[in-house]
Amino acid sequence: MLDDTVKALAKGKNFAALTTLLPDGQPQTQIMWVDADEEHVLINTEVHRQKFKNVTRDPRATVTIIDSGNPYHYAEVRGRVVETVRGEQARAHIDDLSQKYNGTPYQNPITSERVILKIAPARQHSH
Amino acid sequence: MLDDTVKALAKGKNFAALTTLLPDGQPQTQIMWVDADEEHVLINTEVHRQKFKNVTRDPRATVTIIDSGNPYHYAEVRGRVVETVRGEQARAHIDDLSQKYNGTPYQNPITSERVILKIAPARQHSH
Repeated sequence: MLDDTVKALAKGKNFAALTTLLPDGQPQTQIMWVDADEEHVLINTEVHRQKFKNVTRDPRATVTIIDSGNPYHYAEVRGRVVETVRGEQARAHIDDLSQKYNGTPYQNPITSERVILKIAPARQHSH
Repeated sequence: MLDDTVKALAKGKNFAALTTLLPDGQPQTQIMWVDADEEHVLINTEVHRQKFKNVTRDPRATVTIIDSGNPYHYAEVRGRVVETVRGEQARAHIDDLSQKYNGTPYQNPITSERVILKIAPARQHSH
C-alpha cells in the first residue's frame, strides 16, 4: 500500500522526478505528471520513449514527488514497475492527468501509444 | 563546460533532483539546493549521508534542475562526481547557498562535515 502522504502528493497537482536506469546503469531523471492508486505510483508515458525502454529492461524506478507549494516537502518512492497498461485505459488516463494539471483533455500529439507505468514501492518516505 | 541554460538554472533560486545509485543499483532521488561553476553542477551535502557514500562507491549522478517558476522548464545533467571538496571551502559554500535560498547564513546543525560534489556533465539538455 502507498503511504497516505505519498498518495496525497501523487494525487495532488504536483510534479514528480521519475528516475529510470539507462542500459549502462546511468540514471535518467525527468519531470513528469504523476498519479496514484491505492498500491502504486502511476506515471503515463509513451512506448517509444527511452524511459519506457529502460523499465522494460530493468524495472527499477524511483519517483520523487515535490509539493508544488513547498519544495522542502517531498516524498521519495523507490520501487519497481510491476505492471504496464496500454490501449484505451492509458489513453483515458492521460486525459485525466491533463484535466488535473491543465483543466482540459490532453491536446498534445501522441507519437506512438500511451502507457501507464504502475510502480510498487519497496521503500517510501517523505521529508 | 556547462551549457548556459543549465548554468542559469543551477545558479538561480531553483531546486534540483539529485540521483545517485544505492549499492544494489536502485536510484536514490532527493531534492536539493544546487549551484554551478563554469564546468560543474555543484551539490553541497554532508559526508555521513547515504548520497555521499553512494558517489564514493559509484560516481555516476544525474541532476535535474527545475525552474521554480515553470516546472515544464528543466535541465537534466547526466554525469559523474569528478571531485569532492571538504573543509572550510565546503562550509563557506553552504552559507552561500543558504544566502541564495533563505537570505541568511546556514543555521541548521552540521552533523558530520559539509562536502561539495562537483558533477561534470557527460550529457546535458533542457526541456
